[in-house]
Amino acid sequence: MKVKTAILGVTGAVGQEFLKLLVERDFPLESLKVLASARSAGKTVEFKGQTLTIEEATPEAFDGVELVLSSAGGSVSKKLVPEAVKRGAVVVDNTSAFRMDEGVPLIVPEVNRHVLKEHRGIIANPNCSTIIMVLPLKPLHDRWGVRRVICSTYQAVSGAGWTGIRELEQQVADLAAGREPKIEVFPQQIAYNAIPRIPQSGGVFDDGYLHEEVKMIKETVKIFGDESIHVTATCVRIPVIRCHSETLNVELVKPFTLDEVREALAGAEGVTVQDDVANNVYPVPLACSFLDDVFVGRLRVDNTLPQAVNMWICGDQIKKGAALNAIQIAEDLIRQDLVRVPA
Amino acid sequence: MKVKTAILGVTGAVGQEFLKLLVERDFPLESLKVLASARSAGKTVEFKGQTLTIEEATPEAFDGVELVLSSAGGSVSKKLVPEAVKRGAVVVDNTSAFRMDEGVPLIVPEVNRHVLKEHRGIIANPNCSTIIMVLPLKPLHDRWGVRRVICSTYQAVSGAGWTGIRELEQQVADLAAGREPKIEVFPQQIAYNAIPRIPQSGGVFDDGYLHEEVKMIKETVKIFGDESIHVTATCVRIPVIRCHSETLNVELVKPFTLDEVREALAGAEGVTVQDDVANNVYPVPLACSFLDDVFVGRLRVDNTLPQAVNMWICGDQIKKGAALNAIQIAEDLIRQDLVRVPA
Repeated sequence: MKVKTAILGVTGAVGQEFLKLLVERDFPLESLKVLASARSAGKTVEFKGQTLTIEEATPEAFDGVELVLSSAGGSVSKKLVPEAVKRGAVVVDNTSAFRMDEGVPLIVPEVNRHVLKEHRGIIANPNCSTIIMVLPLKPLHDRWGVRRVICSTYQAVSGAGWTGIRELEQQVADLAAGREPKIEVFPQQIAYNAIPRIPQSGGVFDDGYLHEEVKMIKETVKIFGDESIHVTATCVRIPVIRCHSETLNVELVKPFTLDEVREALAGAEGVTVQDDVANNVYPVPLACSFLDDVFVGRLRVDNTLPQAVNMWICGDQIKKGAALNAIQIAEDLIRQDLVRVPA
Repeated sequence: MKVKTAILGVTGAVGQEFLKLLVERDFPLESLKVLASARSAGKTVEFKGQTLTIEEATPEAFDGVELVLSSAGGSVSKKLVPEAVKRGAVVVDNTSAFRMDEGVPLIVPEVNRHVLKEHRGIIANPNCSTIIMVLPLKPLHDRWGVRRVICSTYQAVSGAGWTGIRELEQQVADLAAGREPKIEVFPQQIAYNAIPRIPQSGGVFDDGYLHEEVKMIKETVKIFGDESIHVTATCVRIPVIRCHSETLNVELVKPFTLDEVREALAGAEGVTVQDDVANNVYPVPLACSFLDDVFVGRLRVDNTLPQAVNMWICGDQIKKGAALNAIQIAEDLIRQDLVRVPA
């Protein structure tokens, strides 16, 4: 089966990664449309030796499209995704626009591909920090039950797209040249800094939690389909280009040994264990950039609570945190013969 | 009272900060000797318009010295600090050499200056990550009791001294110039990376915890003199110059409201609250560099456990994390008339 596919938001960091992954994974394309805002229409992108012309993302642009990989921002998705579905396309949407909506499966294939079949045209790709966290939680929850997770993030600037990457690079260059660095994308200078605020993900709730943090809390429950998983998070941006890291303190329901946990993680789909700190073996975001898996290390029994385990995880924000997860969803849709909007 | 003082390790990042702080705080010096390794002997440092010649740190160099501010590394301290004490000097030691020894008070003045009087010649300055953490814990423990702390650190490269700062700067410059960055001080490239390993603080225990992490766990108990405080930590180096940050999840014994917690923190010695995230008010390490206090923000009731509170803290590693805390100890010694070695 080959699919008439469109990329919505092709000029963005995730959009560009979609193009790379479609080649890399030999995605079964019948055809490929590349869509972006009016500003980019008429420009071209190279794809498998062909030159594709970017079309303006209008409702009509989705005529004849069967599958949309969408990553053009929440407000664009809210307007255009329903138009695409109305025209018979199934949309894998990488924004927060529909994630918590009933009838919209929120999918990390390794965790819950079995609910894909419930889609009504839209499948949501979770928040990047959430995706990366749930991968190592999955084997632990299956075997021991996850009761409580305390997460601190070390998030890359790619979460703010090209503009975020450029701002870090420009600030470093400005500082090296003795120029005052410009602050436009992040609330403070991100070079040589750490910022516990992720405005790209939305605002702040009255209780002081960031939208980013509440996404991790609520999306995890929806992905596992289990309200007994309690997550709390503090989200922090650091000057790393494109790979998120997180510390997780995971309290389990049933007793475990650390070796069992390591084994369960090593056997889990999409997870690679790198855990020999005495020999400097652990994941770091620079080394995990551009890779597919979520990497886990620094595994330790919590010295304050024997039913909890401490760990450190890294996952490429643009790949598994966004584009790769969406493509894997699309591949699962094809495999499960679900690339059609139910009547 | 004026004090015959010596700085041991004057060429290091902390040693240089000692010099600055002695001026800044108008420390009551009778005289000042500056000591370092044989390599630096004969070089000079400027101090209050005078040129001081660095002497080699030998046992005899401490003759006639009443107070030593020591930060020359653990192995130097192990050898020379007892020699200084033997010659009648009281030593505030910034290494881990004596911290856990009985009869050596481990002091953060805001928390436990009352045990200073138990010293027998050596007072230990705690680990930098520990100092910064215990400041906000103090008012919480006093009022509600701290039961359990889950800490993730975001540690600056200054923890590895000048060589750490230089390595980050050089790597950034090398990368900008298209050169392969050299890796000497940190186990991986630290520029644009995050490394969950702090070799400068020692090795790794069999259970996978870093020495740095166990210092935070054990030193906190000793500083508070209370074994009921349980800390677990995951320590991570990030590309920030000289200010550590930490996320803390703090479980309290007695019920609290967030406003009460904020008030208690705001009233605590050495702590400044910056907590209005909706208006981008929270500490960041860049802005807290070169400042004295530990800064606290992102205060939230833990959504998974109502008796716990989440927070984000920042404190200058070289100042409060090292040199300033040591000088404050020295000031307290003078104030309490304790600059003498008990018989």
